[in-house]
Amino acid sequence: MPKDDLKTAYRLIGTRPNRPDGLDKVTGRARYGADISAPGMLHAAVVRSPHAHARIIRIDASKALALEGVKAVVTRADFPTGLTGEDWNLQENTMAGDVALYDGHTVAAVAATSKLLAQDAAKLIEVEYEVQPHVIDVDAAMQPDAPVIRAGTADHSVPEGMHPNVVKYIEFGHGDMEAGFAAADLVREQSYKTEATHQGYIEPHACLGQMGADGKGEMWVCTQGQWYIRRMCSAVLGTDASQLRVTPTEIGGGFGGKTTIFMEPLALALSRKAGGRPVKLVMSRAEVLRATGPTASASMDVKMGMKADGTITAASVNFRMQGGAFIGSSPVGEALSCALACYTVPAVFHQGYEVLANRPKAAAYRAPGSPMAAFAVESLLDEMCHELGLDPLAVRLKNAAREGAKASYGPTYNRIGLVETLEATMAHANLQVPLGPNQGRGSAAGFWFNHGGETSVSLAIGEDGTVTVSVGTPDIGGSRASLGMMTAETLGIAYEAVRVNIVETGALGVNEPTHGSRATFASGLAAVEAAKQAITQMCARAAAEWGIDPEAVEWLDGAAVPAGPNAGKFPPMSIAEIGAKMGSTGGPISGHHEVTAGGVGASFGAHVVDVEVDPETGRTTVLRYLVVQDAGRAIHPAYVEGQYHGGAVQGIGWALNEEYVYGADGRLQNTVFLDYRIPVASDLPMIDTVIVEVPNPGHPYGVRGVGETGITPPLPALANAIAAATGARLRSLPMSPPKVLAAIKAKAHG
Amino acid sequence: MPKDDLKTAYRLIGTRPNRPDGLDKVTGRARYGADISAPGMLHAAVVRSPHAHARIIRIDASKALALEGVKAVVTRADFPTGLTGEDWNLQENTMAGDVALYDGHTVAAVAATSKLLAQDAAKLIEVEYEVQPHVIDVDAAMQPDAPVIRAGTADHSVPEGMHPNVVKYIEFGHGDMEAGFAAADLVREQSYKTEATHQGYIEPHACLGQMGADGKGEMWVCTQGQWYIRRMCSAVLGTDASQLRVTPTEIGGGFGGKTTIFMEPLALALSRKAGGRPVKLVMSRAEVLRATGPTASASMDVKMGMKADGTITAASVNFRMQGGAFIGSSPVGEALSCALACYTVPAVFHQGYEVLANRPKAAAYRAPGSPMAAFAVESLLDEMCHELGLDPLAVRLKNAAREGAKASYGPTYNRIGLVETLEATMAHANLQVPLGPNQGRGSAAGFWFNHGGETSVSLAIGEDGTVTVSVGTPDIGGSRASLGMMTAETLGIAYEAVRVNIVETGALGVNEPTHGSRATFASGLAAVEAAKQAITQMCARAAAEWGIDPEAVEWLDGAAVPAGPNAGKFPPMSIAEIGAKMGSTGGPISGHHEVTAGGVGASFGAHVVDVEVDPETGRTTVLRYLVVQDAGRAIHPAYVEGQYHGGAVQGIGWALNEEYVYGADGRLQNTVFLDYRIPVASDLPMIDTVIVEVPNPGHPYGVRGVGETGITPPLPALANAIAAATGARLRSLPMSPPKVLAAIKAKAHG
Repeated sequence: MPKDDLKTAYRLIGTRPNRPDGLDKVTGRARYGADISAPGMLHAAVVRSPHAHARIIRIDASKALALEGVKAVVTRADFPTGLTGEDWNLQENTMAGDVALYDGHTVAAVAATSKLLAQDAAKLIEVEYEVQPHVIDVDAAMQPDAPVIRAGTADHSVPEGMHPNVVKYIEFGHGDMEAGFAAADLVREQSYKTEATHQGYIEPHACLGQMGADGKGEMWVCTQGQWYIRRMCSAVLGTDASQLRVTPTEIGGGFGGKTTIFMEPLALALSRKAGGRPVKLVMSRAEVLRATGPTASASMDVKMGMKADGTITAASVNFRMQGGAFIGSSPVGEALSCALACYTVPAVFHQGYEVLANRPKAAAYRAPGSPMAAFAVESLLDEMCHELGLDPLAVRLKNAAREGAKASYGPTYNRIGLVETLEATMAHANLQVPLGPNQGRGSAAGFWFNHGGETSVSLAIGEDGTVTVSVGTPDIGGSRASLGMMTAETLGIAYEAVRVNIVETGALGVNEPTHGSRATFASGLAAVEAAKQAITQMCARAAAEWGIDPEAVEWLDGAAVPAGPNAGKFPPMSIAEIGAKMGSTGGPISGHHEVTAGGVGASFGAHVVDVEVDPETGRTTVLRYLVVQDAGRAIHPAYVEGQYHGGAVQGIGWALNEEYVYGADGRLQNTVFLDYRIPVASDLPMIDTVIVEVPNPGHPYGVRGVGETGITPPLPALANAIAAATGARLRSLPMSPPKVLAAIKAKAHG
Repeated sequence: MPKDDLKTAYRLIGTRPNRPDGLDKVTGRARYGADISAPGMLHAAVVRSPHAHARIIRIDASKALALEGVKAVVTRADFPTGLTGEDWNLQENTMAGDVALYDGHTVAAVAATSKLLAQDAAKLIEVEYEVQPHVIDVDAAMQPDAPVIRAGTADHSVPEGMHPNVVKYIEFGHGDMEAGFAAADLVREQSYKTEATHQGYIEPHACLGQMGADGKGEMWVCTQGQWYIRRMCSAVLGTDASQLRVTPTEIGGGFGGKTTIFMEPLALALSRKAGGRPVKLVMSRAEVLRATGPTASASMDVKMGMKADGTITAASVNFRMQGGAFIGSSPVGEALSCALACYTVPAVFHQGYEVLANRPKAAAYRAPGSPMAAFAVESLLDEMCHELGLDPLAVRLKNAAREGAKASYGPTYNRIGLVETLEATMAHANLQVPLGPNQGRGSAAGFWFNHGGETSVSLAIGEDGTVTVSVGTPDIGGSRASLGMMTAETLGIAYEAVRVNIVETGALGVNEPTHGSRATFASGLAAVEAAKQAITQMCARAAAEWGIDPEAVEWLDGAAVPAGPNAGKFPPMSIAEIGAKMGSTGGPISGHHEVTAGGVGASFGAHVVDVEVDPETGRTTVLRYLVVQDAGRAIHPAYVEGQYHGGAVQGIGWALNEEYVYGADGRLQNTVFLDYRIPVASDLPMIDTVIVEVPNPGHPYGVRGVGETGITPPLPALANAIAAATGARLRSLPMSPPKVLAAIKAKAHG
């Protein structure tokens, strides 16, 4: 296990080489989902429900099928029956059964010889609907008069007497709540709401699928996780997982939204029905916004007790979240677990409800659940600090979770870096910048568990001593670079001598997706272990050639070296020499490691934002932004900074502008990026970052995941900054200009 | 190690399930080399020398480059210098340097936005040649007055005083030759010649290559061996092997001719020069025949001594072979080693010469060298048997190599099946069919070493208990089926639950190509070992769940079963159950095996052919054909029979019709399949096969390679049959109608 003070001994770790996929990406050579084609390829189009909730009475595809060049139409009737649990959810979301559950829900799909023809054919497919009452808002969906979305869905966990749309209930906590609140000098309780937001990846979903009548299939798909695609498609189609070979293309963003399926089984089902011709299916942006991904919307109550010195004595949270019309799709459990994870509080209690609504099935989105929870908890903490005249960052430090403390969600923390992160934040120069009129400064802390998960990595020594690493986690944020650096560091060879390949499902053991901030952590850990296995073999080959004991050989600077009593007896044998003759010394040399990676290091961050709010329009300008986060060990600091930037920017968008705008008819009204407003460069300042490094003892190089925590603090930090700038406290997202203006006016008139 | 009598215990081995790639292939879905495309793709065309031997004075590509849409031209100047040995040969054959060495030798290549444009541009590339004298025939090339193809090439092994075109000399043997011949009742010596023949694969060479300025490349290519492509291209281009990711496409035949490179580096060099745009290069049939593959032509002397009872007392062979203008490209060494391998002869002596000629660089072709050698040796044996009034098959059996005998080429034979093969041949009903006028029966034996070689296989258990096997040997003759069957047999699961995937170089350890009849043998051996490794893990998972010792668990019918004292205590845990929870019981389950596979089982066959020769035209009709060969164990008998059929057919073509027809100018005159005459269905009878099974002790299921031996006996068997039918002995291939007619006439007048 590396010691913190060993850092200067690393050759590569901590440096900033070019990313291996850089040239491909800047020259346009990288192949994304829509870039894949195959001979005889058909193109698909999808028929989507124009209703938020409607019974499907009849589907008539005869006019579409009569068009020359239309090769297949699929409806739910083309999928097997009898699925249960999440498999059933996935199938139902892929293709509606008796009922369309949200605006954009797929009801049929068609494959034809051109994209335009497929789109024309889709328009000719007649669907007769019987429109049902719908509900969009999470609070409204819990009201007694709310339309029932799907009776009998609710889990046994739900208390009796609740509306059938409430499908899940969670509670947990520890400590004496009554005593905790009684010990406080100030107890406050507030309610908060956040809107659903979309991951907003640049690349829409796209795939090319092919499946024969024999159930053998191939798929090229833009995904975060090829094995998830394989497993989910196989479940939905009723085929064997191993018969489907899924190759991930380059990926233009995912943020959790590409860890599941939306339309992939349609391409395969169409292909199977069209005699095995490959079928390409590329979503439009409107389809992406209507029918994929978003995170849940949330309604949340928080109650907190604080002493006059800032000590938090007790805290309780009660969260309601919808994740669409599908049980188990909201991140309410994660939200509860993250809510109070930054602090050591003697008494905590969490309650959460999952609620169905006529919205698309929610998908993971960067630190799922944590940003909403932070919005509620960190806003209230800020408010109470100001009421008590305390510095919110100092209060966070006072209550900060530390190594050995019991986390609010149960386990005991290993070595964590929240204290170091808060100290670095408080010491940062940004906090000394004086503010002008209508300007305010806000801060917040954030947390993400990080994830290890199922991981398989193989590594092979080439005939010239250069090395391939086969990993199953698609490279979204630079993991080819970080994995290559760790491998090269371990093997003692040049970074350029390693090629990290993201491989298809037919070529490697099972891997979870690039999610949970796990790629550099878990694939890295496995790559290092695989490299060590190869080193052991290479030392043994050298030992055999030298006629000495393998234990008497050590690996140094990319070469086997005789050690101990044999030191200096033979010249070092380089990896290139060993590779060149491996065929005649025992065979190809590889290393492998399969693991469900534990030892994850929890991740903490703190953000400080300065804003100026235009009192006449309510528009918020972000003046400066500071991200401080513990990376454990920054393998490639530039990509760590990139993650910090990206998390902050997505959080800023969520906080200030992004929202799903539904009409009274339950249809989504903002289905393009002109109307669904993600931040663009001109909305943003340069973002300052500080990488704190408190090595994770559970990783050979100390890595913690860095991808997710950064999206968590922006929501409350901006609310806190806007409150500081305007005196108006916004407890509902987004804090868009009209809402901020209304809050300013309400305060003026209040 | 399986016992012969265990055969009936196999569930799958020996059965004939559908091949996994069958549906893809019959529906046209399988993607071959020319089916691959990529966005922004360019097309390449090649400028080839119209001269058999010429100095290249000047290449001017300015007119080609002036065409709009022409993106790059490469000549030898675009390749690194300083290569040596076979790497230099490969580079020189890929692109001529100062001298074009054969008709069709590449001198430049061009990439443009369409294939037609590239072809037009190629015509605009001006090449000024200074024509040199050339030589085509192997005997002519050794004459004192022959033009020198490349001075200073010859190996130190060549005896002094030989022509500089003689570049290599080999000799070996054992026993007292003089005593051997002295002990014989009959000593005969004859000379034989065979023409070069092409592998005649249906699919011409095709690839799509992409390479950036950073040296990172991708290639999709029709090949027998993706790692050979990777290594050879990297050597020729001066890049790191691991930076090139080579994906094999489906392959329409190879027969050894696709184990090397011909134009693949051109696609990469053009791409590198064209800013990394992908470049597609597809050969025409004329390019295939002029500039790829053929086997060597040969000139051979054989001397043999035989007792009156058929005992062979001594034999010597002296072979001269050309493999084009490149040292080391002829199979003279293999030819010598195969020549007398069927027999145990007290005294043998082998001499061989490699000779340069102005012909394309020879490539491997099914049992390289063995068919020529058999033509010479088995023809002479047949002639001598008839002279002594002996049955040639009985003489072969009398002298047959057996287990424990020293092979003519050095080693001691393990368990081999020549005796069983000859006995099965002699017992076959075909030998009892009476022959009519102008009909004759001929027989011959044949041999191939078989090969193991560098092999890496990985196997992964899927989440639903179905299994993927990742192998590096492209499936040419049904190896997906045979490898899947062996894996399923070992795991105790259904054949359909396994998918065998041929993977790219970035996904697995190094593998030699599908060559040397090694795919089912070596990848099979490794797949079985990988499966056993997975079984060990699965038993351990079950044991941990049951809380018993892993040794107390056995694997039975696809499930872990408590054994010994725990028998019956827990219900069996199936592979599906283990797969479903592997993530929470320790991680993904895989198995891996890397090995340079030894333990190969030598392969022997015997063929009997009946022909009718039209005395007026010299045309030979093959009436019936029998192939008997030892398969060790026929995993999938239909594909074993397919190999027997294919070998016989290619041998028949070689014997009767195929030849390279060169003009006096040294240019190849028959560059299409209308003129280069391979057998078509109407040329052939149904071919009878007998699979002899003498299990190879070096393989867990007893497999011997079966791909190559079958091409060896047809050449002499047909010569022997024609001699029997006509009384005319042909000692030069092909035995085409004009030559047979001439021989009949010569005999009549002789």
